[in-house]
Amino acid sequence: MSTTIAAISTAPGIGGIAVIRVSGSEAFSVSAKIFKPKKTSFSLLAQEANTISFGNIVDNNNEIVDEVLLSVFRAPHSFTGEDVVEIACHGSIFIQQRILQLLIENGCTLARAGEFTQRAFLNGKMDLSQAEAVADLIASTSAASHRMAMTQMRGGFSDELQKLRTQLLNFVSLVELELDFSEEEVEFANRSQLKQLVIEIEQLISRLSDSFRVGNALKNGIPVALIGETNVGKSTLLNVLLNEEKAIVSDIHGTTRDVIEDSIVLQGITFRFIDTAGIRDTRDKIESLGIERTYQKIEQAAIVLWILDCTQLSEHIEWLTERIQKRSEGKKVILVFNKIDKIAEDERDVLSHLFDQIEGERVYISAKNRLNTDALEAALIRAAQLPDIQPGDVVVNNIRHYEALQQALTSIRRVSEGLESGISGDFLSHDIRECLHYIGEITGHISNNEILGNIFGKFCIGK
Amino acid sequence: MSTTIAAISTAPGIGGIAVIRVSGSEAFSVSAKIFKPKKTSFSLLAQEANTISFGNIVDNNNEIVDEVLLSVFRAPHSFTGEDVVEIACHGSIFIQQRILQLLIENGCTLARAGEFTQRAFLNGKMDLSQAEAVADLIASTSAASHRMAMTQMRGGFSDELQKLRTQLLNFVSLVELELDFSEEEVEFANRSQLKQLVIEIEQLISRLSDSFRVGNALKNGIPVALIGETNVGKSTLLNVLLNEEKAIVSDIHGTTRDVIEDSIVLQGITFRFIDTAGIRDTRDKIESLGIERTYQKIEQAAIVLWILDCTQLSEHIEWLTERIQKRSEGKKVILVFNKIDKIAEDERDVLSHLFDQIEGERVYISAKNRLNTDALEAALIRAAQLPDIQPGDVVVNNIRHYEALQQALTSIRRVSEGLESGISGDFLSHDIRECLHYIGEITGHISNNEILGNIFGKFCIGK
Repeated sequence: MSTTIAAISTAPGIGGIAVIRVSGSEAFSVSAKIFKPKKTSFSLLAQEANTISFGNIVDNNNEIVDEVLLSVFRAPHSFTGEDVVEIACHGSIFIQQRILQLLIENGCTLARAGEFTQRAFLNGKMDLSQAEAVADLIASTSAASHRMAMTQMRGGFSDELQKLRTQLLNFVSLVELELDFSEEEVEFANRSQLKQLVIEIEQLISRLSDSFRVGNALKNGIPVALIGETNVGKSTLLNVLLNEEKAIVSDIHGTTRDVIEDSIVLQGITFRFIDTAGIRDTRDKIESLGIERTYQKIEQAAIVLWILDCTQLSEHIEWLTERIQKRSEGKKVILVFNKIDKIAEDERDVLSHLFDQIEGERVYISAKNRLNTDALEAALIRAAQLPDIQPGDVVVNNIRHYEALQQALTSIRRVSEGLESGISGDFLSHDIRECLHYIGEITGHISNNEILGNIFGKFCIGK
Repeated sequence: MSTTIAAISTAPGIGGIAVIRVSGSEAFSVSAKIFKPKKTSFSLLAQEANTISFGNIVDNNNEIVDEVLLSVFRAPHSFTGEDVVEIACHGSIFIQQRILQLLIENGCTLARAGEFTQRAFLNGKMDLSQAEAVADLIASTSAASHRMAMTQMRGGFSDELQKLRTQLLNFVSLVELELDFSEEEVEFANRSQLKQLVIEIEQLISRLSDSFRVGNALKNGIPVALIGETNVGKSTLLNVLLNEEKAIVSDIHGTTRDVIEDSIVLQGITFRFIDTAGIRDTRDKIESLGIERTYQKIEQAAIVLWILDCTQLSEHIEWLTERIQKRSEGKKVILVFNKIDKIAEDERDVLSHLFDQIEGERVYISAKNRLNTDALEAALIRAAQLPDIQPGDVVVNNIRHYEALQQALTSIRRVSEGLESGISGDFLSHDIRECLHYIGEITGHISNNEILGNIFGKFCIGK
């Protein structure tokens, strides 16, 4: 922690300007060695906080590397909580690297990915869940993911969680104090007050934990399994859906090719298509590899889009229906009758009745003729069951938090049951401590180098 | 000029932070509409220059878009010479574009490429050649190109040129005054002083104009034509040269694929290889398309690398030698005897004598066995004839400047001749005015929208 770190903080590549960030106790003294101010009366070490100075970066031979603007921030009033200098230079790659090199030659260490934010966390500028939100914020590409990250970065659920954690910590101390006087059967911890707190905590954790479905869907997209026998028009439909949206998705730079090819954004919600190999009608061996794989894909999906060819139903359709129904439990199924233009109006009802045992919407389309595909999109949005996220809405979208919340929920429920059944103080204390531990993992009160390494390693360099 | 412009000034893409620049008379008032400072007592309009403030960017619904640092610069003490606000936000693409969008919704115009620098020029913060150096500086990828751009941005030759231009302007006024008194044969302009000034100007312009060979070579690389008959080992040699250097070149991000494939950097000098189709030994039709194209490539090159197969000289070699010699006039030729491991020591001299009429170094190599390729590299560096550029050395590397200098040289020489032959004042004045015009084109005292559009259109957005 005693090192002074430096990194290029702006996006890699050529730009009008670039910013190099320096943080640590030597930030001023190292910068002063390479910065020659325009004003001769200037002293970097004495420079007022939150001010900008114009000058040159010079190398050891006094050759000018660039004309720069140098911003000064003083501990603890900086992003990291340490002394920070930001050097805004011309955005040439040569200049960026040269300045970084000079900083390192003069005593700085190259910052690891996320190290600035990690220091902000370690210096108490933000808790761990807020620090994680910084990475989410930088990666955000949609209004919904941006809004969630912003809420979390600004405190989100951690304030509330932290308040309840402190109260719980008080109670557990009292319970543990009782143990010292176990002979005397005293109760320092008011059990009915504790019960009330436990209920409150359980409610909050439940609510947060439940929000993960929405948060995760908004962050990572809703997985949709596209299933159906071969030749029912699956890939035509996928292409229609993708093509209509491709232009919009492509507008967002930085989205990966994967995302562009397999996802669509409808009303701000991302749907990720898990394409399955068509179920081949292998007659006597219908339980073949194909259908097993399809089952696995259904497992991963939240929505099952089952495409059927109106003009030609497999002879195994009943058998298949039964199995797909069984595998789709707890998922939203949309039955998509394709090639609807090829059959008469009254045939639809007959068709639909064949699938009475399948719950879920029916949509009648012609993928090839782009008939009624908007109805399919509307059905997808309904099936997503996602509420509008408003600014300030607390939504958990981080799998690490979700897992900790699940663990915390289990322990707090054990506490609740223990209170009901009047278990002894030592068991009660153990369960409360466990709950405190998992809550602490979210806020970062409980952390270790491995956890921190995992979290901050995913950041970009310079943040 | 009355609009307030905004653009993302950092490199495109995701980064830790990004900077959005706003310049113009409305920079403060527009920014104030979307910036909510942390300090309630804060007023952006009254904010002291060169200071940084922490706060939120909010949209019209008061939803927080990001937590940002806002830097304030006041006219004329800013890059553009106007009021400038720089918003440092989290480097998410979504956030960058959202903030830019909010600025535009609130009255800013999206800046054109180079518009910030163009305003700096128009507001007298720098002359035109300095403004052009900003683009060179951002594009610089080697120490030499960086050093040239930095010297030019910091004044370079324009100061000196400007001083002489002012003196010449005084003289031409006096000469023109004489014309009003033409009946009286007065001489307000001291002819011997004028002669002295003209000599001085001619020397400076000559010197600058001559430096273009070096400047252009350092900026764009030295073109090397790689010629030879088919199967002499041309592509093997090219691959050896490129492979050895590829790692170094690839280290410089942002270099184009072209550069990586066809250029090498030796001791800071870039050599661009112009690969030619092998001269095919078509016997009766040797003057075919192939050799014609090779001649054209030789035209474009400064160095001709003629590869010969020691073991097998074409029967047309004498004929070819004569032609290549004729076409290579004024260029450096390097004769590269390849497959040297295949012949005896004493055969070398015999071989070499065959080419006595070709001036230039001889290098004996085996490309395949990487034998003596370092000698070839050394020969290339000698053939480049480039002096080391020292910090502060004035070197012209801009074709626009070079062309204007050439024109100015022609006119100043006409002035000089005119003075010798004692031509009449009106002719003298005309020639001086022409010289002033061309010098003014470099510094930007003479400019028009077309010239400016050409120059600044090549900049990146946000600079």
